[in-house]
Amino acid sequence: MHQHGGDIYSHKNVLDFSANINFRGMPESVKEAARAGVDHCMHYPDTACRKLRDVIAQREQVEPGQVICGNGAADLIFSLVLAQKPREALVTAPAFFEYEQALRTVGCEIKYHYLEESKGFLLQRDILKAISPKTDLVFLCNPNNPTGICISPELLKEILKRCEECRTLLTVDECFLDFLENGESLSMKQYLSSDRNLFILKAFTKMYAMAGLRLGYGLSDDRGLLERIRNMRQPWGVSIPAQMAGIAAAREMEFAADSRRIIQKEREYLQDKMEQMGYRILGGAANYLFFQGPLDLYKVCLEKGILIRDCGNYKGLKPGWYRIAVKSREENQELLAALEQAAKRNT
Amino acid sequence: MHQHGGDIYSHKNVLDFSANINFRGMPESVKEAARAGVDHCMHYPDTACRKLRDVIAQREQVEPGQVICGNGAADLIFSLVLAQKPREALVTAPAFFEYEQALRTVGCEIKYHYLEESKGFLLQRDILKAISPKTDLVFLCNPNNPTGICISPELLKEILKRCEECRTLLTVDECFLDFLENGESLSMKQYLSSDRNLFILKAFTKMYAMAGLRLGYGLSDDRGLLERIRNMRQPWGVSIPAQMAGIAAAREMEFAADSRRIIQKEREYLQDKMEQMGYRILGGAANYLFFQGPLDLYKVCLEKGILIRDCGNYKGLKPGWYRIAVKSREENQELLAALEQAAKRNT
Repeated sequence: MHQHGGDIYSHKNVLDFSANINFRGMPESVKEAARAGVDHCMHYPDTACRKLRDVIAQREQVEPGQVICGNGAADLIFSLVLAQKPREALVTAPAFFEYEQALRTVGCEIKYHYLEESKGFLLQRDILKAISPKTDLVFLCNPNNPTGICISPELLKEILKRCEECRTLLTVDECFLDFLENGESLSMKQYLSSDRNLFILKAFTKMYAMAGLRLGYGLSDDRGLLERIRNMRQPWGVSIPAQMAGIAAAREMEFAADSRRIIQKEREYLQDKMEQMGYRILGGAANYLFFQGPLDLYKVCLEKGILIRDCGNYKGLKPGWYRIAVKSREENQELLAALEQAAKRNT
Repeated sequence: MHQHGGDIYSHKNVLDFSANINFRGMPESVKEAARAGVDHCMHYPDTACRKLRDVIAQREQVEPGQVICGNGAADLIFSLVLAQKPREALVTAPAFFEYEQALRTVGCEIKYHYLEESKGFLLQRDILKAISPKTDLVFLCNPNNPTGICISPELLKEILKRCEECRTLLTVDECFLDFLENGESLSMKQYLSSDRNLFILKAFTKMYAMAGLRLGYGLSDDRGLLERIRNMRQPWGVSIPAQMAGIAAAREMEFAADSRRIIQKEREYLQDKMEQMGYRILGGAANYLFFQGPLDLYKVCLEKGILIRDCGNYKGLKPGWYRIAVKSREENQELLAALEQAAKRNT
């Protein structure tokens, strides 16, 4: 079975750097909304997530009819694939594992576009040649998970154009884009109304630390596609606590702005210290860092009660690549102590 | 779009008799557990639902390895269908709409076995002839939704045998069985370890009034099938509040016993009064009643602020069939007043 980050159930009482969740936790208003939601749970959830979609549409400056909600972004990945039933799809490697797992559920042939270490895992223009009329679906992640590296806006525009030519559905996973200062300007939202071959994936899970509540959403102007997705899944997928928490979260703009600032500062602190220790850090536009370290680093950290994400099981990555979340100064210092010891042991 | 019961979002401030949920609401311990769960939601849920499956296994007297949890029972229906990809499946009509919707997601040919009104919608032995080696999957609901009528245990045993002969997966939805005094003896659980062509569907949603939290589970001895189901969906489908509420609910045996007793008394009260008014009541082994009434009954009730389930959109039912939940004495009396007026107007 594929191992994911955030498995604090197999590793009890660890300091978890393996899940890239906003370390500040859920804002109090979001927690309160979720708790209040519990009191309504005798009823079924609103199958259409009407209130939540209205609030998301307002925040994202799109139409409510362009918004679809899901039981986490992962739920939407699976339903989208089931709705499209692609015969051939293109994914980058490394990338979030669920694209691949979802594509397998419909027996899709998966083509991998490998990101090259020598190019710093940055997506290159040669991906355009990998998209053909046989490509039914492309999954991109911006910034990429686990690398944290962004795709250039110019290249994204070219990819979208190529997808239009090939009648290929382009899915851009922007679940971590909200952590970037210039996230809004990098979003594919600007192409939403003029282009119908585009599906954008978003989540409140990361920024508002709602991973355990499950809430994600998708944006598309292809109403037929959204309708097909809805037909592929149960009507009551998004729980009442998740819907109510989402409504509260969408209004927490200041929390998001503060988080971006605080996390950037901590990310730079971590990066500086790690580079001083000799670690090679490649990515980190969001709330996580992607780096190379000794082969036994996962084990060394775990012995010290710290869980990091060993990226060795990502397709396209060799052993020795890791991902860590950016956390609070105190927690980061605890991690740095372990990283320092591991670095010294290996020199 | 198919209309379901419990849509209090399209019909605000109604007294909802359309969703068959335990009217007593969530036990306090379950609410508290769900609320406490919110505090842990910064983390991802346990993908394997380990604690919850242990507690369910204990309650159901099965092995934890025979239990699979889902984001509501409906989630399991869709994942099961996706895992099996049946080419031909058999469902009864009328029955819960999601079997059919799930089967459509994989392009399955659906055969309907119509329950006859003249036989009181009771499943007859002729279903055995409808199961052939071409039948990949059979969905049965016991007691049936919306009729509330149980399948005879002898017939169920014969169906299971026929399914074994035909290598057909038999799925029995027992989501409402917990409301029956003799529910345990009617359950297909007794065949779980000796038969691998069996999948039993259960939910806490109905008895513990957790519809908005989403939690269902399945039981099967076919570990390969459970593994295939897990591969068809995201790993984090069951939220932390749902997992924690489920753990608390599984321990609330007395609440369930009390509910059965109270609901039976109220069901008999409702049935008596309605029969005195001239309504034809057919089913009602669980927490809901299935009956025939005037064609405008849904509208008349809604005008009085009461939402009932118009069953006219169920395949195999003519207009004029309705389902109501059994609620508290006071609420039932409010419903009875509306039903009486509708009955008088139509005589």
